[in-house]
Amino acid sequence: MTGNIKEECGVFGIYTREREDVAFLTYQALYALQHRGQESCGIVVNDRGVFSDVKELGLVNEVFTKEKLQKLGTGQIALGHVRYSTTGNVSIHNAQPMTVRHVKGPMAIAHNGNLVNARELREEYELIGGIFHSTSDSEVISYAITEQRLYTDSIQDAAHNAMRKIKGAYSVVMMSPKKLVAMRDPNGFRPLCLGELGGGKGYVAASESCALDSIGAKFIRDLLPGEVVVIDDNGISSVTHKDGKRTCGGNLCVFEYVYFARPDSVIEGVPVHEARMRAGRFLAQEHPVDADIVIGVPDSGVDAGLGFSRESGIPYETGLIKNRYVGRTFIQPSQAMRESSVRIKLNPVMSAVKGKRVVIIDDSIVRGTTTKILVNLIREAGAKEVHVRISSPPFMHPCFFGTDIDSRDRLIACQMPLEKIAASIGADSLGYLSIEHVNQIAKGANVGMCDGCFSGKYPIDVPDEMPKDKFEYKLQC
Amino acid sequence: MTGNIKEECGVFGIYTREREDVAFLTYQALYALQHRGQESCGIVVNDRGVFSDVKELGLVNEVFTKEKLQKLGTGQIALGHVRYSTTGNVSIHNAQPMTVRHVKGPMAIAHNGNLVNARELREEYELIGGIFHSTSDSEVISYAITEQRLYTDSIQDAAHNAMRKIKGAYSVVMMSPKKLVAMRDPNGFRPLCLGELGGGKGYVAASESCALDSIGAKFIRDLLPGEVVVIDDNGISSVTHKDGKRTCGGNLCVFEYVYFARPDSVIEGVPVHEARMRAGRFLAQEHPVDADIVIGVPDSGVDAGLGFSRESGIPYETGLIKNRYVGRTFIQPSQAMRESSVRIKLNPVMSAVKGKRVVIIDDSIVRGTTTKILVNLIREAGAKEVHVRISSPPFMHPCFFGTDIDSRDRLIACQMPLEKIAASIGADSLGYLSIEHVNQIAKGANVGMCDGCFSGKYPIDVPDEMPKDKFEYKLQC
Amino acid sequence: MTGNIKEECGVFGIYTREREDVAFLTYQALYALQHRGQESCGIVVNDRGVFSDVKELGLVNEVFTKEKLQKLGTGQIALGHVRYSTTGNVSIHNAQPMTVRHVKGPMAIAHNGNLVNARELREEYELIGGIFHSTSDSEVISYAITEQRLYTDSIQDAAHNAMRKIKGAYSVVMMSPKKLVAMRDPNGFRPLCLGELGGGKGYVAASESCALDSIGAKFIRDLLPGEVVVIDDNGISSVTHKDGKRTCGGNLCVFEYVYFARPDSVIEGVPVHEARMRAGRFLAQEHPVDADIVIGVPDSGVDAGLGFSRESGIPYETGLIKNRYVGRTFIQPSQAMRESSVRIKLNPVMSAVKGKRVVIIDDSIVRGTTTKILVNLIREAGAKEVHVRISSPPFMHPCFFGTDIDSRDRLIACQMPLEKIAASIGADSLGYLSIEHVNQIAKGANVGMCDGCFSGKYPIDVPDEMPKDKFEYKLQC
Amino acid sequence: MTGNIKEECGVFGIYTREREDVAFLTYQALYALQHRGQESCGIVVNDRGVFSDVKELGLVNEVFTKEKLQKLGTGQIALGHVRYSTTGNVSIHNAQPMTVRHVKGPMAIAHNGNLVNARELREEYELIGGIFHSTSDSEVISYAITEQRLYTDSIQDAAHNAMRKIKGAYSVVMMSPKKLVAMRDPNGFRPLCLGELGGGKGYVAASESCALDSIGAKFIRDLLPGEVVVIDDNGISSVTHKDGKRTCGGNLCVFEYVYFARPDSVIEGVPVHEARMRAGRFLAQEHPVDADIVIGVPDSGVDAGLGFSRESGIPYETGLIKNRYVGRTFIQPSQAMRESSVRIKLNPVMSAVKGKRVVIIDDSIVRGTTTKILVNLIREAGAKEVHVRISSPPFMHPCFFGTDIDSRDRLIACQMPLEKIAASIGADSLGYLSIEHVNQIAKGANVGMCDGCFSGKYPIDVPDEMPKDKFEYKLQC
Repeated sequence: MTGNIKEECGVFGIYTREREDVAFLTYQALYALQHRGQESCGIVVNDRGVFSDVKELGLVNEVFTKEKLQKLGTGQIALGHVRYSTTGNVSIHNAQPMTVRHVKGPMAIAHNGNLVNARELREEYELIGGIFHSTSDSEVISYAITEQRLYTDSIQDAAHNAMRKIKGAYSVVMMSPKKLVAMRDPNGFRPLCLGELGGGKGYVAASESCALDSIGAKFIRDLLPGEVVVIDDNGISSVTHKDGKRTCGGNLCVFEYVYFARPDSVIEGVPVHEARMRAGRFLAQEHPVDADIVIGVPDSGVDAGLGFSRESGIPYETGLIKNRYVGRTFIQPSQAMRESSVRIKLNPVMSAVKGKRVVIIDDSIVRGTTTKILVNLIREAGAKEVHVRISSPPFMHPCFFGTDIDSRDRLIACQMPLEKIAASIGADSLGYLSIEHVNQIAKGANVGMCDGCFSGKYPIDVPDEMPKDKFEYKLQC
Repeated sequence: MTGNIKEECGVFGIYTREREDVAFLTYQALYALQHRGQESCGIVVNDRGVFSDVKELGLVNEVFTKEKLQKLGTGQIALGHVRYSTTGNVSIHNAQPMTVRHVKGPMAIAHNGNLVNARELREEYELIGGIFHSTSDSEVISYAITEQRLYTDSIQDAAHNAMRKIKGAYSVVMMSPKKLVAMRDPNGFRPLCLGELGGGKGYVAASESCALDSIGAKFIRDLLPGEVVVIDDNGISSVTHKDGKRTCGGNLCVFEYVYFARPDSVIEGVPVHEARMRAGRFLAQEHPVDADIVIGVPDSGVDAGLGFSRESGIPYETGLIKNRYVGRTFIQPSQAMRESSVRIKLNPVMSAVKGKRVVIIDDSIVRGTTTKILVNLIREAGAKEVHVRISSPPFMHPCFFGTDIDSRDRLIACQMPLEKIAASIGADSLGYLSIEHVNQIAKGANVGMCDGCFSGKYPIDVPDEMPKDKFEYKLQC
Repeated sequence: MTGNIKEECGVFGIYTREREDVAFLTYQALYALQHRGQESCGIVVNDRGVFSDVKELGLVNEVFTKEKLQKLGTGQIALGHVRYSTTGNVSIHNAQPMTVRHVKGPMAIAHNGNLVNARELREEYELIGGIFHSTSDSEVISYAITEQRLYTDSIQDAAHNAMRKIKGAYSVVMMSPKKLVAMRDPNGFRPLCLGELGGGKGYVAASESCALDSIGAKFIRDLLPGEVVVIDDNGISSVTHKDGKRTCGGNLCVFEYVYFARPDSVIEGVPVHEARMRAGRFLAQEHPVDADIVIGVPDSGVDAGLGFSRESGIPYETGLIKNRYVGRTFIQPSQAMRESSVRIKLNPVMSAVKGKRVVIIDDSIVRGTTTKILVNLIREAGAKEVHVRISSPPFMHPCFFGTDIDSRDRLIACQMPLEKIAASIGADSLGYLSIEHVNQIAKGANVGMCDGCFSGKYPIDVPDEMPKDKFEYKLQC
Repeated sequence: MTGNIKEECGVFGIYTREREDVAFLTYQALYALQHRGQESCGIVVNDRGVFSDVKELGLVNEVFTKEKLQKLGTGQIALGHVRYSTTGNVSIHNAQPMTVRHVKGPMAIAHNGNLVNARELREEYELIGGIFHSTSDSEVISYAITEQRLYTDSIQDAAHNAMRKIKGAYSVVMMSPKKLVAMRDPNGFRPLCLGELGGGKGYVAASESCALDSIGAKFIRDLLPGEVVVIDDNGISSVTHKDGKRTCGGNLCVFEYVYFARPDSVIEGVPVHEARMRAGRFLAQEHPVDADIVIGVPDSGVDAGLGFSRESGIPYETGLIKNRYVGRTFIQPSQAMRESSVRIKLNPVMSAVKGKRVVIIDDSIVRGTTTKILVNLIREAGAKEVHVRISSPPFMHPCFFGTDIDSRDRLIACQMPLEKIAASIGADSLGYLSIEHVNQIAKGANVGMCDGCFSGKYPIDVPDEMPKDKFEYKLQC
């Protein structure tokens, strides 16, 4: 992955029959979800109705010390959240989970996704006297649920009823003093799955199945699009889909398979690793090349690289070494040495590429800057030819559902015809996966896909007031 | 001051004609107000309508680094707040100033005081769908003002109208994108004054005049009880008291003079230093004693000690040295060495007290534990006699207006008759200032006093649901 | 104290018969000695021969967390040190105590003072192959002692023998695996005293008696000038002065009484508080003035102020309030607002000074800048006249013995005749204590005094290579 | 790499003709060397003879903030060091580079390796009065060089002469005010290479060539075993090997190729990546197996995995996902959940291994615990068979040259015959690389190899006092 697509958010919720060290289990799960958001993270623990939280800017291993985990202590329910990183509006005010107090009792909430009618809803609630502390959609969702709570004592019914009002992408975990509730929007834009703790200890909900693995929980199933699930003393039950039947096909973001999710996660029945291998195979079919070795750009290009290698018969190589220690806090040199900044993160293995015709596989190209430097590094390391293959179609349209793609005027694919991009990045050839193929990488998935950022076709109405060609929509989770 | 009365909060607001380094000026002013609250502090800067804030647990000098002040940057308006420290519910969620967003624009608010009808108001707003992020009264006040903003575009009018609804003690500073507003409750329980920056640069509002001195601002006047003042492009003007006349006598907390305020502040026309000197003089009249030296317990007992010395003719001595470096983070020894903990903070000057009959002046006795240790230390240092004089009456009743007095069952004056307290703390004699006299220490003040914690007589109705003899009311500012 | 004289260092050592929480006791004692040095602090604990230490830049309450104290853990012996603050060469390398390893076993050492022959000794040891890790005199002393240890198994004898080589001011505490040793130079320039822990638990050595008080230890006596004391299984014994007789009169730094030491300490039999009161009385005799009130500049001018008041009959007043919260980390404003920087630390009490003829007492004037601002503040607060009285003579000469006086070309008393200084600082009159009187403030002390910085007469030879009129000698402790 | 072999240290030195931002360049290079040591790191900058340093416990990205790098500032020469992590004796005292002062001028030094005669040398220097501040071999080397400096003004000659005295493994970078010197022990146990900065700006020395790549420096050559190189105004020159001829074959630690070095480094002419591929190929020849997929344990097993795949024709798979965010500070759960601790770091890709006969390739087995958990995880993920192949021979002997292998009584290969290890870790089969083959993985290298930890045959005498079967020797770099 060569740059500027911001990852979204990751959510996690846990319910245990007895009081357990739910803070620690959530902490462990957030490690597994860290790739979904590196700006801030938070945990809120519910111990017999008393909510305690820690929310800070930073990575899980920076924010949570032993002391803080001990303070959060044991409880029966907990929520966790990791939030993506943007250069701009980094603020602790938008950190999640969010805890709100209400006459019907406290509630905490965390979500992944982006509402398309957030602006209208904010205005509606403000006009009846509501006040907002953040710019986060979580607060809008909280208002929508709170509104419904005035008419029902059941938080899950309130959540269900609120779905009529909130439009867009949202995978939500929330809790009241006694219940854990999980909710997924009717399109199922973002993943959300259920798991069971060993020994009948309780249940969890998580953005990805790898979070379940990290705490030894057993995967049960994905939430259905449009489903609300409640977990309490009576176990786990579906509020909306009591018959387990689907109401619509769903439109899962296909880029979850291409880039966002971890390869060891399984989403809607399809292993992410397999989907990426398949993307690599399709690429080899669509854009074959006569070459000596295939290199996947670590980490996200590796699986597609292996797929390309298998399909083409060209040997796979570890041609780029990623420095595991360059974290968020890498200090840029005073002088503008952008190339050096890439070089410190990725170094070609000269012995692997020297004198070779090299295919490099990456998941996407955003501005093209990083790809250009990379192609150059590999060429300097002695490669005879450098062919670039991208395991997704070109980004041509904005995403309204929780992905922070760069603005259109900086997206290279919006700037020039494809043939010119190859020249611009210095590649001998360039090939993108077709839209047809990207929709088949998760073949056999239980849901349909959303490919709006590639095709411009969105499964639901998108805001009028935001012109589609202006990509500056503020994304939140 | 021997212990457990928690200080309240301090507020500060600044408006400058041009963009200035308002973050730095607020930072300076918060240093001067730090004695009013050591739990958390915050600054919010308004730069052409964009609000940036920093709010954290800790002292001003711990929270604000150069980097953070630079990030807050320049602006035209800013608010600052210091919050008191309690052992219990220390939470960043209640840190101020609070910024809220609304259809009529953003607003930030900080207050000092305590509402008596917060619970009813919370419920009222919750029942129309409002949600609360904190347990702070600031959020209740925000709702009340927001409610009024729906009917007017003027934030100062909204504030004024909201006063009909919010009952209790509140000295408030707030800002909209273009205005700084200051508001004081109709009783004037807590102080709030106005100042002018040098060179006609702008105006400030602050809890105490010492904050004005710290930035070289000139004192203009105290806000009247029940007054709302607005500062904007048109300068400073009173929304409610356009004729400058008072609507009621007011009931300023007399303990502000006794203990809370800094001696170099002037409140309602009376220098705090002078009030404390007078308290010492009254004490000497009420409870004369044949002694060799007078010692004021640093820092708050020093002025009353000087007053006692002047009135009685007994020489004043520096008999106790306060360690200036023992901060909030002093680590208690593993074994219970409470005496050692007092000893590290206050050490008697043996040469000053040895063989002497000593009068020690303190502002109050809460549980009596610290006073007892102190008396013992002075006796061990060789004092022949130790006479304790307290520059306020005994605490016998709860405060509903922003002071966190200990619970009744731990207040020594509620536990035993006065004659027994002397024996309990090991003093040769003990004398408290009378209620009559405490009401005269600020003679000439522009307002009346509230002495509810001493007399049990409150100037306004206090909550029914909280029994007066149960002092556990959660205090907020 | 108005500014630029750097305080020196403070040392502490403890020996307990059984393993105790010596880290915590040392931590407590360092709080009491913090006024002697605010740059860095350190503790080294000796648990059955294993030395563990923590040394960092910062105040005691910044450096020592609960976790760090627990890591240091229990032991039988410990040393502690606080180091003064300079603007320049702040380095962790010079932090003390210093631990060195040698064939005769490990040794830790901490000292207060300054050697006059450090340079020669460094060269001597370097020429036989020695290497230095720091620029601290502690390392030179370590070499001198290590040299002697080659000839004896007794660390106390080695220390004693090393005294022949090391010249200058040094109050040292050190430990071997089984012994605590304290040593004071033959002139006794810097204080060092012995105490006994309650219940026969063990012994301590400390720069000042206030450190003993802070842990409830009983004062035994000051070390004699030139004395080496050893504390081990056999209790406490003097290596050098077995008969308890003095070998010379000694030359204690008189400025310890004027400024460095805490008023509740007793040095060489004279309470510091009493010495300062006496300085104030002498001042009133030497430079009487017709005035209404006397103000001591807090904290160090208060005692002399009281003395001046007693002698002159002019009432003492709290005319300046010191902000207790302005710590080391106060951020200077971007624009040069030096006056504002003084104002935030010291604020006049207008009600006390308005319309009054004021005498302000301070312990010294260095550059004159701060005094000038202070005089101006008091005048602006309404004082009719401002008379400055200084409780020590003018600084005219460098100190070679551990005090960091400013360089001569910035010392106001080296720049202009005394009569001009008054005009320069804006005072109506100015009076310094005479050299004769400063030598009598500690009347009855067991030692003689060093007044070299005032008189230019030094009790021992001072370095040739450093011209007396060039005050840039780097001072260490 | 499944566990407990501690990595060693990494060194870096830079010399620039003009003053440059050498602190930043060193910082960048340390990132590239971070895999060689994660306990502490340090940089010392030499600006016209003034040495400034920062040395702290932690990773490069934790220790070096922008502020600290700015303080280090520009200069002409700098040294950097990363130190390995041990559970036990983690101390800042042993952090490097070490700066020492001497009559011939200051010197800073950093090294990688372990002396075999450190104890004798320490004693020798202590007996002439030397004192030691650390337990680091760097201090012993400093004494040896300082001893020689007494006889010569040339630091490079002193270094050369000192080589006669210091025995063992040492790759050293050091600097005097005007020179950068690099030195490698006569056996060349540890790598050390030279590079040239672009534009003739200067030269660098580094443990591995990947550090050169990270700053765009061009590889010149490895230092010869026993060589001393000096870099100054006159450029770069060899002190000892002016003819460039080798004096001995050398004995480079073969485990550098197997595990320590980064795959993109080239050591003694052999790319590490290639050596690992070859190890995988040899393994496939020695221990063929009928299987469906090959998995390399990330990160160090990946290259050997690819080699095994190529040789055997069995497809390579990404069967294990390593969590990139689990850093040093991962908090262990209160209950003993060791398996969960592995699981959070490595998660099997179920879709890749389910129903498959799996070969997993790792570089070594230490205690066997981690391997056992890993085998179990893969089996639980559905693998039909799990075959373990190790790309090095079993550890049977201690290392005296800078590698911290576990103690013998915990090394599984010292505990049981090889056939039992397979059963113990739950593998269907197990194969180690033979000693013969491990010596051929770096075929074509310019030096011979040391395989002492496998064979027990050491190229130089090892200490008598340390029995070879007791592996508790304290390792330092």
